[in-house]
Amino acid sequence: MEVTRTLARYLVNADAREIPKDVKREAVRSIVNWLGCAVGAARHEAVESALAALLPFAGPPQASVLGRTEKTDILTASLMNGITSHIFDFDDTHLPTIIHPSGPVAPALFALAEYRPVTGAELLHAFILGVEAECRIGNAVYPEHYDQGWHITGTAGVFGAAAACGRLLGLSEEQMTWALGIAGTQSAGLREMFGTHSKSFHPGRAAQNGLTAALLAAKNFTSSKQVLEAKRGFANVMSAKQDYPRITEGLGKSFEVSLNTYKPFACGIVIHPAIDACIQLKREYRLTGDEVERVELSVAPLVLELTGKRTPQAGLEGKFSIFHSTAAALIYGAAGEKQYSDECVRNPKVVALRGRVEAEVDPKKRDDEVHATIRLNDGRVLQKYIEHAIGSRERPMTDEDLSEKFHGLADDILGRDQAGRLLDETWSLESLSDAAAICRLATPKAGERLSLRA
Amino acid sequence: MEVTRTLARYLVNADAREIPKDVKREAVRSIVNWLGCAVGAARHEAVESALAALLPFAGPPQASVLGRTEKTDILTASLMNGITSHIFDFDDTHLPTIIHPSGPVAPALFALAEYRPVTGAELLHAFILGVEAECRIGNAVYPEHYDQGWHITGTAGVFGAAAACGRLLGLSEEQMTWALGIAGTQSAGLREMFGTHSKSFHPGRAAQNGLTAALLAAKNFTSSKQVLEAKRGFANVMSAKQDYPRITEGLGKSFEVSLNTYKPFACGIVIHPAIDACIQLKREYRLTGDEVERVELSVAPLVLELTGKRTPQAGLEGKFSIFHSTAAALIYGAAGEKQYSDECVRNPKVVALRGRVEAEVDPKKRDDEVHATIRLNDGRVLQKYIEHAIGSRERPMTDEDLSEKFHGLADDILGRDQAGRLLDETWSLESLSDAAAICRLATPKAGERLSLRA
Repeated sequence: MEVTRTLARYLVNADAREIPKDVKREAVRSIVNWLGCAVGAARHEAVESALAALLPFAGPPQASVLGRTEKTDILTASLMNGITSHIFDFDDTHLPTIIHPSGPVAPALFALAEYRPVTGAELLHAFILGVEAECRIGNAVYPEHYDQGWHITGTAGVFGAAAACGRLLGLSEEQMTWALGIAGTQSAGLREMFGTHSKSFHPGRAAQNGLTAALLAAKNFTSSKQVLEAKRGFANVMSAKQDYPRITEGLGKSFEVSLNTYKPFACGIVIHPAIDACIQLKREYRLTGDEVERVELSVAPLVLELTGKRTPQAGLEGKFSIFHSTAAALIYGAAGEKQYSDECVRNPKVVALRGRVEAEVDPKKRDDEVHATIRLNDGRVLQKYIEHAIGSRERPMTDEDLSEKFHGLADDILGRDQAGRLLDETWSLESLSDAAAICRLATPKAGERLSLRA
Repeated sequence: MEVTRTLARYLVNADAREIPKDVKREAVRSIVNWLGCAVGAARHEAVESALAALLPFAGPPQASVLGRTEKTDILTASLMNGITSHIFDFDDTHLPTIIHPSGPVAPALFALAEYRPVTGAELLHAFILGVEAECRIGNAVYPEHYDQGWHITGTAGVFGAAAACGRLLGLSEEQMTWALGIAGTQSAGLREMFGTHSKSFHPGRAAQNGLTAALLAAKNFTSSKQVLEAKRGFANVMSAKQDYPRITEGLGKSFEVSLNTYKPFACGIVIHPAIDACIQLKREYRLTGDEVERVELSVAPLVLELTGKRTPQAGLEGKFSIFHSTAAALIYGAAGEKQYSDECVRNPKVVALRGRVEAEVDPKKRDDEVHATIRLNDGRVLQKYIEHAIGSRERPMTDEDLSEKFHGLADDILGRDQAGRLLDETWSLESLSDAAAICRLATPKAGERLSLRA
């Protein structure tokens, strides 16, 4: 079976005119969501560290570090914009593999677009192909590969970046097999890094390494032509499962980007149903938090396993606490980055309310399902059943939701006006004559730097 | 068990004055051997491709691409000098793990030394520590890790580069655990790449990624502090064997660099006993090749697994063919780079003789043992038993052998005079006040560029 060659042939020959309209729309939604995350995290300490460490060795100012004034060579920019995309854990999720598809692909493509001009339509098509490659490769090895300890966004993502950039660089079929090979032999990223800066390093390095692979292949740096299926290739070495037809069948007929989802809340996806229920009840009954005597949640088993932290001490820990998340949602009616600041996690009002939240496991509940009961001091009992949380495939965020999320992330960095213009341009990506216009708008104007969040 | 922290503590606190003299001498021999390989391969097509692909994105001219006139940022230079070190497959080998220890460590250290001056003694000590880290980590997972399909020079090498550079950068113990963590989450390299340019990419990328890890850790980019031993860390995810005491016991007492060996022949080490036998028989009986009716080899099992290519088409493939190697050795009495040129592999005389070579596996044979039988047309039967091949620990190359090998590689690139001066300086590494003097001597003088090999 010629797995790598079949995929490479498709990537090289795919015709943009054959991509259905709704697939393109979902790709644009993915890019809008990615861009907000990347710009929003531009001042995070992980990026400050990475830039301090690596700027002295960066090349010419070819590409933008999004949300910042620095420009670097396209490889360094890919790394930085991949790191920022994942810092808040607020990026997109391909639910069948839990890959975050945009983080490895979009940073590499936009950096390349600043160096070698392409239209928005060309970039969009390359993005769709990159996501297709990484998610199909993920499908072939998930969940065994992930269970073994691999952070699949890094390990599969590098193929996506190589495929997408290889397409923009116009690689031949043979060169595309090399690009996938050079990508595969850099495939890396351990789940052990979760909870540290190195987790968001994974999509960044995947973007940078995939772009490197495509650039090398374009100059005929050779590699195996069977990296995916060979005895000592990616799938056999890094996974106990190898379902190759998931890579080769239906290419050009179905599109993985259509399965992409976006998080309305800046935390682990299993808490989303509870937050959703609390925000809905808060709105319906104009709750402030003070009148809440007790919150009772009936949740899926995975929820307490992943997010059972009773007394988080720092913002990042709050993302792994259903108790904090529920309390903050009832008080603020939101669960964005602000609700996961150190300040919010330590706010006495939030701390008091989270102490009155109880969560009980119901083994029959699906991961995106919850039953919430709120008992008020005046004796009333409010109930909310969530069958599918907002942000799931069944109840996707609307374009308006995504725009609002974007503003919530980007306004503090770019100012509301520029963020709005950037958003308009990004929704219109397919009609742009120069895709790099996005990057220029995504950096603070010199002399207009805003005072930034602490 | 605190594996990562124990190793990090040793790397940070080790005292150069406690390194035995013979250990330092073996480290210098390793560097002499590495440098010859790196300089000698400076004009190989793999390097030309990699430079053509990546120079447009490289940073300031901080470090030398050895054997060439280009200067680049230290990360790009590490990559290139790691690639060249392994292109001829002529570099050093740590036999217990078949790691090529110098390729990932020395390029990163010398590039860093051009940017941040250090003495030769400091660099030598950091080199010894880097080799110690990578080989101990290799010991803990070999052979299961290698058998699974990992190219251990890449996967373990990245730890060596991070450890060595972290030492030169003066990391704290905590930072050193992060450096090892960032290294580990980039650990990569598939054996499927053997026979392509991407094989030598592995030590190059390991050098570059390990240096990156140390630079990031120095700026407090965080990582797991248990990358080696954690449930989802390096050893558990990437190997079926985890022998942690091989990492933590006897630190500072025994030194892995003492086990390093150097190749007299420019091909996979498992073919060396057969070449050794053929060259000895050729000399003893003044054979030309024509009179050989048939060659029968009794070899260790790994030999045919790694080098069983019956009909190699290109020079590089010839290195993975015991049949070609044996035939060429009988005809030319040598197995240097010239015997692995495309021309030699396609030479009808060599092709004819390789068709008369048979190799049979003897499960009881060690990897550096061979029994060779040559049947001549006149009916004579010649026999040679090699207990340990030349270049093994038991029959090491002398300093003079290494100097001769160095000249054979470097003279065509630097000219014999400059190569001789470079060799003298490298043998005296420990007394140099500025280790980077080596790098300056290892690049062709402007205006004195020699005409180079085709």
